[in-house]
Amino acid sequence: MSTQYRVAVVGATGAVGQEMRRTLARLNFPISDLVCLASAKSAGKELDFGTATVTCQELREDSFKGVDLALFSAGGAVSTRFAPIARDSGCVVVDNSSAWRMDPSVPLLVPEVNPQDADRHSGIIANPNCSTIQMVVALKPLHDAARITRVVVSTYQAVSGTGAKAMAELRRQVEELQRGTDARPEVYPHQIAFNCLPHIDVFLDDGSTKEEQKMVDETRKIMGDSTLKVTATCVRVPVCNGHSESVNVELAEDLSPQEARALLSATPGVIVEDDPATQLYPLAIRASGTDPVYVGRIRRDPTVTHGLNLWVVADNLLKGAALNAVQIAQLLDQRGLIRVPR
Amino acid sequence: MSTQYRVAVVGATGAVGQEMRRTLARLNFPISDLVCLASAKSAGKELDFGTATVTCQELREDSFKGVDLALFSAGGAVSTRFAPIARDSGCVVVDNSSAWRMDPSVPLLVPEVNPQDADRHSGIIANPNCSTIQMVVALKPLHDAARITRVVVSTYQAVSGTGAKAMAELRRQVEELQRGTDARPEVYPHQIAFNCLPHIDVFLDDGSTKEEQKMVDETRKIMGDSTLKVTATCVRVPVCNGHSESVNVELAEDLSPQEARALLSATPGVIVEDDPATQLYPLAIRASGTDPVYVGRIRRDPTVTHGLNLWVVADNLLKGAALNAVQIAQLLDQRGLIRVPR
Repeated sequence: MSTQYRVAVVGATGAVGQEMRRTLARLNFPISDLVCLASAKSAGKELDFGTATVTCQELREDSFKGVDLALFSAGGAVSTRFAPIARDSGCVVVDNSSAWRMDPSVPLLVPEVNPQDADRHSGIIANPNCSTIQMVVALKPLHDAARITRVVVSTYQAVSGTGAKAMAELRRQVEELQRGTDARPEVYPHQIAFNCLPHIDVFLDDGSTKEEQKMVDETRKIMGDSTLKVTATCVRVPVCNGHSESVNVELAEDLSPQEARALLSATPGVIVEDDPATQLYPLAIRASGTDPVYVGRIRRDPTVTHGLNLWVVADNLLKGAALNAVQIAQLLDQRGLIRVPR
Repeated sequence: MSTQYRVAVVGATGAVGQEMRRTLARLNFPISDLVCLASAKSAGKELDFGTATVTCQELREDSFKGVDLALFSAGGAVSTRFAPIARDSGCVVVDNSSAWRMDPSVPLLVPEVNPQDADRHSGIIANPNCSTIQMVVALKPLHDAARITRVVVSTYQAVSGTGAKAMAELRRQVEELQRGTDARPEVYPHQIAFNCLPHIDVFLDDGSTKEEQKMVDETRKIMGDSTLKVTATCVRVPVCNGHSESVNVELAEDLSPQEARALLSATPGVIVEDDPATQLYPLAIRASGTDPVYVGRIRRDPTVTHGLNLWVVADNLLKGAALNAVQIAQLLDQRGLIRVPR
């Protein structure tokens, strides 16, 4: 019988926190006790966990005493402050924010891609950006087979990636426009209903956004290849849940669409949906609520010596966030790594 | 005083036909008489033309007698059959379908890009695909300055490009989902509301769609450069009107984002919206109902020697269709080319 852990979810009431609770229960993660943590205003709320309910507690410096593992999804500021506190009290942290991802001492993990990096953790493990996770799951088998040299990616990202308030904003704006009134933007700088916003996270000095830079930096770190060239354009679209990505790949060696399909079909966590004759290709509405990364529209790009185009779709709250975090926890459990190295 | 023309609009009741009537009136195209043509079931309908109304007539083989110029937007089958009939009765055809675009004897015109090609017309001039038009308007000044060698484009295309029925389908599906019922697909093969469909026009043998192949072939023909490499992924998004495009460009020579902005700002028909500090970038909802091609998010792509990323947005019914057709008519008028060469 496996060890049972005392597990905390930090940000337990948020869109990702809710999926973390559901996924821990659904995958039967060995939990003796679930601690739900959030801001003071959520303290006292009763939160679902499987068939039970757990009372939400306010996140405090002493919240991690006796906790073995904490899944954080409460934003960068909370992670920056509380992840070291948790680790110092002996709790292993799987952090969904961007705060620790590029720290050289912190593994950035996608279990299908770089499980070996788990071994060198020192108490904090980072969960990558949602857009990056689904892309690297699709790219890894192609990289192993024919070495990817350059990626040009454009994303079609759902509002759920911003959180529950953004999902409500999309619904509200649709109703406002149906009533003939202006669609009032609050969460986003501009109307998201029936519109596309080429702006996710903050702008950087070079004109890219932080989301775009994350896809560059995190892809290299996860794939363990600092020479891999990635350029990204990240776009919010009026989709409730499920990110889609148009991925153009240049390879060092030849890889036919047939070979790519065979490799991807044999990859754990990937489902190939690619049959134009039956109008089968990955769709956000079908991916939403499911675990796999879906890949389709696999075809040659004849404008380079060895090129492919792909369409990659996944549930950004599940594989892009909560599921990947719980899969990291499972990996740590299997390897006996749910302990902070001294 | 300029010549006045007898002008026909074929497909006068459709989404593009309506914009053709509006644009002809708004730009004061010199018209002595407007003939509105459509299928038998629309015959007798009263259609707006400026402050007047015109009775729609059934399209027939003798519809073009005495007509100087016809703007066609009634699908490929109608254009294939009736454009030669119109031309043979001395009527110059500007055709919005894809039927004639790749015919070597037919100029494919974007007046800002290749006006010189008008001179060699033999009675039929083709209006390019909507996605192609807005892209080539943005690319031409960059190509002239630093020679574009390769383009990787992913599109975010509005439902209005499919026509009035698709616009109604998006509205209806949104309401169905609000009521908690399934969103029934009729025009599209899958639900378009809150979803992205990587499928526009029919699939070809190589796994690409005809829309994607159009962007490749038409861009080369309009730019007059058969060596220009283009790979496209075309995606329908739940936007009512206004196509957006993520365009990655490789150049033969260096061109800084600043230089690209200056070149584009000086290009007729282009408006540069590119100020991250004020969250200014092109948006479909703002482009909708307006004439320009908007370009923003201009930044270096450091993964190639000379690379840029752009975000290009335009009203697909206006610059992408009706406006470009009327601008072709204006160009023909200015050059005395509204006559079928014998």
